[in-house]
Amino acid sequence: MTDEFALIERIRAQLGGDAPDWLVLGPGDDGAVVRPPAGHDIASSIDSFLADVHFPARADAELIGYRCLMASLSDLAAMAATPAWALVALSLPEGDPGWVTALARGMDEAAATAGVQIAGGNLAAGPLTITVSVQGWAPVGTMLARSGAMPGDAICLSGPVGGAAGALRQIDPAASRPNQLTALERAYWRPQPPFSLASALRDHASSGIDLSDGLLSDLGHVAAASGVSLHLRRAAIPVAQGAGLEDALSEGDDYALAFTTGHKPLMARFAVIGEVAAGSGLHLDGKPVNGRGFRHFR
Amino acid sequence: MTDEFALIERIRAQLGGDAPDWLVLGPGDDGAVVRPPAGHDIASSIDSFLADVHFPARADAELIGYRCLMASLSDLAAMAATPAWALVALSLPEGDPGWVTALARGMDEAAATAGVQIAGGNLAAGPLTITVSVQGWAPVGTMLARSGAMPGDAICLSGPVGGAAGALRQIDPAASRPNQLTALERAYWRPQPPFSLASALRDHASSGIDLSDGLLSDLGHVAAASGVSLHLRRAAIPVAQGAGLEDALSEGDDYALAFTTGHKPLMARFAVIGEVAAGSGLHLDGKPVNGRGFRHFR
Repeated sequence: MTDEFALIERIRAQLGGDAPDWLVLGPGDDGAVVRPPAGHDIASSIDSFLADVHFPARADAELIGYRCLMASLSDLAAMAATPAWALVALSLPEGDPGWVTALARGMDEAAATAGVQIAGGNLAAGPLTITVSVQGWAPVGTMLARSGAMPGDAICLSGPVGGAAGALRQIDPAASRPNQLTALERAYWRPQPPFSLASALRDHASSGIDLSDGLLSDLGHVAAASGVSLHLRRAAIPVAQGAGLEDALSEGDDYALAFTTGHKPLMARFAVIGEVAAGSGLHLDGKPVNGRGFRHFR
Repeated sequence: MTDEFALIERIRAQLGGDAPDWLVLGPGDDGAVVRPPAGHDIASSIDSFLADVHFPARADAELIGYRCLMASLSDLAAMAATPAWALVALSLPEGDPGWVTALARGMDEAAATAGVQIAGGNLAAGPLTITVSVQGWAPVGTMLARSGAMPGDAICLSGPVGGAAGALRQIDPAASRPNQLTALERAYWRPQPPFSLASALRDHASSGIDLSDGLLSDLGHVAAASGVSLHLRRAAIPVAQGAGLEDALSEGDDYALAFTTGHKPLMARFAVIGEVAAGSGLHLDGKPVNGRGFRHFR
C-alpha cells in the first residue's frame, strides 16, 4: 500500500516526452495552465469508464489506460479538433503501485500516439473508475458539430465498424496482454480515432460524430441535431473483420467517425453509406428505423 | 427508472441562464466548444467526489451538487483564474429523476454564483461519484502557482479556517436541508472560494493554493514547490467559529485560499499568519512541523 502522493509520483514518472511551450504549467499545482494558440476555439469533453461496465476490472492495466484515453480523445477527432491536453481522475480501491504504474504507462502510450498532454489529474480511494477530460483546438469557427448535416450531403464512415463488438464475442479481454495482441484483441483494446482527418474535415465536412454508442444510435443524434433525415444503405456499410452487420449497426465502442459532406474528393476517399435529405429520422434501405445502441439505466 | 438520455434532458432543463457569446457550443454534442478571450491563459483542473468519502451518500442532492461544483472551482480561485466552463461526469446507481434534478439544481446555483458555465457532461450507471473538470482564464502570464513564494513575503489567508471540520463534529450533514441551513451547516455545505480576489492576487500575490487538504499539508506543498521555508504563528491563524486550532491546522474542506505576497495593502486586508524565508519546510512558532492532512490510501 502506497499513499496518495507517492502514487501520484509513480504516475508522473510514467508520463514521458517534453512538454510543449503552450503547456505553461503541468501536473502538480492546483491546476494546469495552458496557453492556446491565437485564433483558435477549444473543444472540451468528459467521459467516465467504470470497471466491469466499460472495461473488465481484471484486465491488464496498461491496456485499460490506453483504451480509456483513446476512447475519450475520439470526441475531439469527431469535432475535427487537434488533441491538446487531458486531465485524468482515477479512483481505485487499493493503492497498488504496480497497477497504477501500468495504467499510467498505457495512458502515456496513447497520449504520445494522439499528441495529447496529460496535464493533471486526481486520485481517490474508491470503486475503480477512470474519468478523462479532454481538450483540443481548431481555428476559430472550423469545429465540427452534429448539427451541420445538409440535404444532399453524403454520409461517410472513416473506417469499418462493428469490430469491437465482434471481437468481444470471440475473445476474453481480461486475458489480453499488451505485447501479444491478436487482430481481434486490437479491435477492442486499440481504438484508433482518425486524428489525421481533422484538417480535411474542418475544410469539407458539414457534421461529425464518433461511433461510441452504435451507428444507428449515433446517426440518430445527427439527424435530430441537424433537423434532417438520414438514408442508409445496408450493403454500403463497411463491416469490420470478425463482425456482423448487427454489430456494425447497433453496437458501439468502435470510435470510428461518421461525417457528412458534399465534397466529392472526400467522398471518394471514404465509404459512403447513405445520403442526407429533408425530413427527419433514420432510414435503412428505405424503411424508418429507431436508433438502437447502448444506454445506461435502460 | 428513466433512461440515460431522458435523465440528461432533466439535467439540461435545470441549467439556467443565457449562454455567453464565448460558449460557441454547449451541452449535447461530442464536446463543448469555447472561444477564449484573446491574450488569456487557461487553468484546468479535475476533482472527484465519492459518496461516503467526500460527502454522505444520503445527504440532500441539491446540497451535494452545490458543494461539489464549488469545491472544484476553488482550484481556479487559488490560481487567480476567472471561472469559465465546467464539465460534470456523474455516475449513479439508479436513474432516479428526482435526485438527478435536485443535484443539477444545486450545481446550477453554484454555477450562477461563481459565474461558470456547465458546458457538458457524462452520465453512467455505477457507484455514486461526481467528477468535475473546471476551466478558467486569466491574462497571459498572470496565473498564480504554488511555486512563486519568495523569502520576505507574508503568508496570508483569505478567511478563517477549520470551519468545515468543526461543523462536521457538530452536525449530521445527511440531515441538512437546503432552505434551512444553520451557520454550522453552511460552513460545510456552502464553501465560498474568494473569486472576487482574482484581480488583486494576479497583480500582487506571488503564490496561491486552496486549502482542501488542511493548512499544514497544503502549505507544505507551497514550501516544496517554491523552494523556501514557511514560518507560521499559531496565534495569528484565524480559526472559524465552532472550530478549534487542530481543525484549522490539519483538516481540509474549507476552500479558503492561502497566498503569499510582498504587497503591503494586500497584507493589510487579510490575516497574515507568517512569513516566507530561505530554507525548506514548514515551521510553527519556530519549530519544524510535518505537513499533516487527509491522504487517500494511508
